[in-house]
Amino acid sequence: MSIRVTVWGENVHEQTSKVVQEVYPMGMHNCIADALNEDPEIQARTATLQEPEHGLTEEVLQQTDVLTWWGHAAHSKVEDQIVDRVQAQVLEGMGLLVLHSGHYSKIFRRLLGTTCSLIWREAGEMERVWVCNPGHPIAQGLGRYFEVPQTEMYGEPFQVPTPHEMIFSSWYQGGEVFRSGLTYLRGNGKIFYFSPGHETYPIYHQPEIQLVLKNAVKWACPVPGLWLDNYTRKATPPVEDIQERGPKLHEPGSEGLR
Amino acid sequence: MSIRVTVWGENVHEQTSKVVQEVYPMGMHNCIADALNEDPEIQARTATLQEPEHGLTEEVLQQTDVLTWWGHAAHSKVEDQIVDRVQAQVLEGMGLLVLHSGHYSKIFRRLLGTTCSLIWREAGEMERVWVCNPGHPIAQGLGRYFEVPQTEMYGEPFQVPTPHEMIFSSWYQGGEVFRSGLTYLRGNGKIFYFSPGHETYPIYHQPEIQLVLKNAVKWACPVPGLWLDNYTRKATPPVEDIQERGPKLHEPGSEGLR
Amino acid sequence: MSIRVTVWGENVHEQTSKVVQEVYPMGMHNCIADALNEDPEIQARTATLQEPEHGLTEEVLQQTDVLTWWGHAAHSKVEDQIVDRVQAQVLEGMGLLVLHSGHYSKIFRRLLGTTCSLIWREAGEMERVWVCNPGHPIAQGLGRYFEVPQTEMYGEPFQVPTPHEMIFSSWYQGGEVFRSGLTYLRGNGKIFYFSPGHETYPIYHQPEIQLVLKNAVKWACPVPGLWLDNYTRKATPPVEDIQERGPKLHEPGSEGLR
Amino acid sequence: MSIRVTVWGENVHEQTSKVVQEVYPMGMHNCIADALNEDPEIQARTATLQEPEHGLTEEVLQQTDVLTWWGHAAHSKVEDQIVDRVQAQVLEGMGLLVLHSGHYSKIFRRLLGTTCSLIWREAGEMERVWVCNPGHPIAQGLGRYFEVPQTEMYGEPFQVPTPHEMIFSSWYQGGEVFRSGLTYLRGNGKIFYFSPGHETYPIYHQPEIQLVLKNAVKWACPVPGLWLDNYTRKATPPVEDIQERGPKLHEPGSEGLR
Repeated sequence: MSIRVTVWGENVHEQTSKVVQEVYPMGMHNCIADALNEDPEIQARTATLQEPEHGLTEEVLQQTDVLTWWGHAAHSKVEDQIVDRVQAQVLEGMGLLVLHSGHYSKIFRRLLGTTCSLIWREAGEMERVWVCNPGHPIAQGLGRYFEVPQTEMYGEPFQVPTPHEMIFSSWYQGGEVFRSGLTYLRGNGKIFYFSPGHETYPIYHQPEIQLVLKNAVKWACPVPGLWLDNYTRKATPPVEDIQERGPKLHEPGSEGLR
Repeated sequence: MSIRVTVWGENVHEQTSKVVQEVYPMGMHNCIADALNEDPEIQARTATLQEPEHGLTEEVLQQTDVLTWWGHAAHSKVEDQIVDRVQAQVLEGMGLLVLHSGHYSKIFRRLLGTTCSLIWREAGEMERVWVCNPGHPIAQGLGRYFEVPQTEMYGEPFQVPTPHEMIFSSWYQGGEVFRSGLTYLRGNGKIFYFSPGHETYPIYHQPEIQLVLKNAVKWACPVPGLWLDNYTRKATPPVEDIQERGPKLHEPGSEGLR
Repeated sequence: MSIRVTVWGENVHEQTSKVVQEVYPMGMHNCIADALNEDPEIQARTATLQEPEHGLTEEVLQQTDVLTWWGHAAHSKVEDQIVDRVQAQVLEGMGLLVLHSGHYSKIFRRLLGTTCSLIWREAGEMERVWVCNPGHPIAQGLGRYFEVPQTEMYGEPFQVPTPHEMIFSSWYQGGEVFRSGLTYLRGNGKIFYFSPGHETYPIYHQPEIQLVLKNAVKWACPVPGLWLDNYTRKATPPVEDIQERGPKLHEPGSEGLR
Repeated sequence: MSIRVTVWGENVHEQTSKVVQEVYPMGMHNCIADALNEDPEIQARTATLQEPEHGLTEEVLQQTDVLTWWGHAAHSKVEDQIVDRVQAQVLEGMGLLVLHSGHYSKIFRRLLGTTCSLIWREAGEMERVWVCNPGHPIAQGLGRYFEVPQTEMYGEPFQVPTPHEMIFSSWYQGGEVFRSGLTYLRGNGKIFYFSPGHETYPIYHQPEIQLVLKNAVKWACPVPGLWLDNYTRKATPPVEDIQERGPKLHEPGSEGLR
């Protein structure tokens, strides 16, 4: 059975910037989905900010194994309740690929708990992406490094918690370095952050970038049928035979306080 | 110089529950602050939900090395902007002790990124708290274990990310077990979650509990003078001499998008 | 294609203890292998201490996806060069299940870097194994907990590094608690430590224990074809065009010092 | 009270290489110790491979808060029992700074459990060391980056477990990048690996390098009086009143098997 991917695109600069339109006439989300669909194991569709519920209804998320997230200009326009829904699904096991400027997205900051700030420069310089672990599934098929001919610089300090694994480390012609490929676990969901992807350059057309995304989709895909139980919020009866004693706050059958 | 602690209390059940009033006539926050103040290295004051800005003004937080957080009935009444402020301060290095039902507080869920859900039972049963690492600063002065005569049961699954360290593991008479003492790092802030502390029992009067809190304050206190730089949001000039090339989105001097 | 498992057994107490012989007439290794072979996705064979190279030749390890390790009385009799070989294979991606008293095995201490010490008691008491994450692949098919009717107590402090994940937490009738199911990553190998399994009780005959082992084999199995490159030990030529300068220690073509 | 540091030096190339003698006429260990002793909070002495017990007697280690380790040509000449002793002390809380080619030392590989392999080149090129977290104690007093004018290149993949924290990331003129400053915890010991330090260049004379070492000593210093209990290897009596039942392997009073 195919891995079901939903490619989420903010789809704002594609509408407002002539430069971006020329690079991605169908939008970045369609470029990414087309690339993923070249892989016979992957079945990708798209969703965008402008659709009702940003295209991320309960039904769509229930049918999504891995969600990819690209946003830049309109993070604040993403509804909090949709972020809640995506977060809940990640915790239940849905994979999440956060791309480039998605480091400032509500969902990434929500899951990581830090500012996710970094330094940056938009000068069209070259980025060399080094592989920190050539045996990792996400790095399969790459050499020791690959280059992105034109990129936006993202530099340290990158204010994130210690990652689960560091897959890539980038250097830029202007001199900076950056932890450009990081994995995290939250609940049963696997998360991969991958920094290349500035919208004014044809980065998602590049074969190495597409390969990383395909690899990462396979890595992040949950094992079928694994979901956290829906534990009741009601008081849990004891395993051992004990006598209740002492004062209580909660009424019998109470669902507890949140 | 003393470690400056702010003991934050929700202070709701102390007003509404006769049982809680009898156990904590001055409020739990004052009980905790008094215990901490017995230690000559610690200088503790209190703040409560009902004060303006919940007692957590910028000025108060700037003068706080370690914040302790107890809440249960009114998590949703804590203003989001105060949570933002506390989070920012933790990331800059302020220590944070999250107590008992504070596992569902906005600040704890914000920093951890998961639901922080657990199972529970209010039956006044005994809790035996085992020490997982007798050499850890937070466990100094304890034996192999200690007992809380009456407690609320908190049980697994506890939906939190893998902790930095596991200090305590509890067992309850009703049969359940729980990771009752966990540390986390977020930014430069050290976080300690400690589960005993149900308000209907005199748990914060117990010497072992007070010892753990004193130890944890010392553990969580930041090294003086360590703060993250306030990196400018503006584009960062390169280290190497490079020529800008290719199309750009950002105007010169732009602060970037968030 | 099946997951190829090698079940390694020390096979000493099976020869020297009448009690153990009665519980495991064919040896614990055969009991475990038989249980694993009930699963159509798994193909298990055995290897023991007494065989040449302890049954763990280069050829056997090359054909092993997951190795399980049980030892107790003869850790010191395991040859260091076989431990080197197993370690190298784990780092390349082979899964490793370390069982019960294997916590003191050379291979486990080698991979973890700590003493792996714990407290213990052999009193035939009951162990209740709690599930910390019901959504984890290793916990599939279990309820909230299960019981081992007679067990050896293993208690905290368990001197191991912070695990990657905590899957199980046990309580014993005598009162102690223990982190009884822990995962680690080393190189590209996934490691699972699971504490139940004392040889004088029929623990590996118990369905829940067998289920955990089957689940863990599937969890630890490497993605096919993923291996770390064999990076040359020779000096690596530069990517950029640079001029060598300054004094050198190493002769041209040197393999470097180890 | 001062932080007591023992600076361990292999002291081989200082004897055999004229180049190294010129850069470090008193040996690298004395250069490092002299730099540390400039700090009034630190009291450093030296120990070398050639001394009895490599200068690391039980007495010396008992009086050492932080040990620094530099070795390159003679890792295999370090006695295993001294490595055992150092490891035991680290697990009890002694800080450990592993420098440059010490990545291949017995003690570092012992504590980390991986090969600690990397790629390298000795071409006297420049290294730019970037600070990943300017708020970390080890980075205090540094700017965004500093440069080592001539260095040996150490490049990814660096086969180590995910670190506790990543403090520095280096780039070299030849193009490679490397995780050059990493922290680990093992038992109660704090470990810092710092890669600059090739013996043919005057790297330990450089003020920024000396500052990092001073900062790291303060970071790694254990809280006074914290030691793991020496838990008896004998069977532990139960907390609850239980009856022993079932067959046993161990004689009463047995110390157990290792």
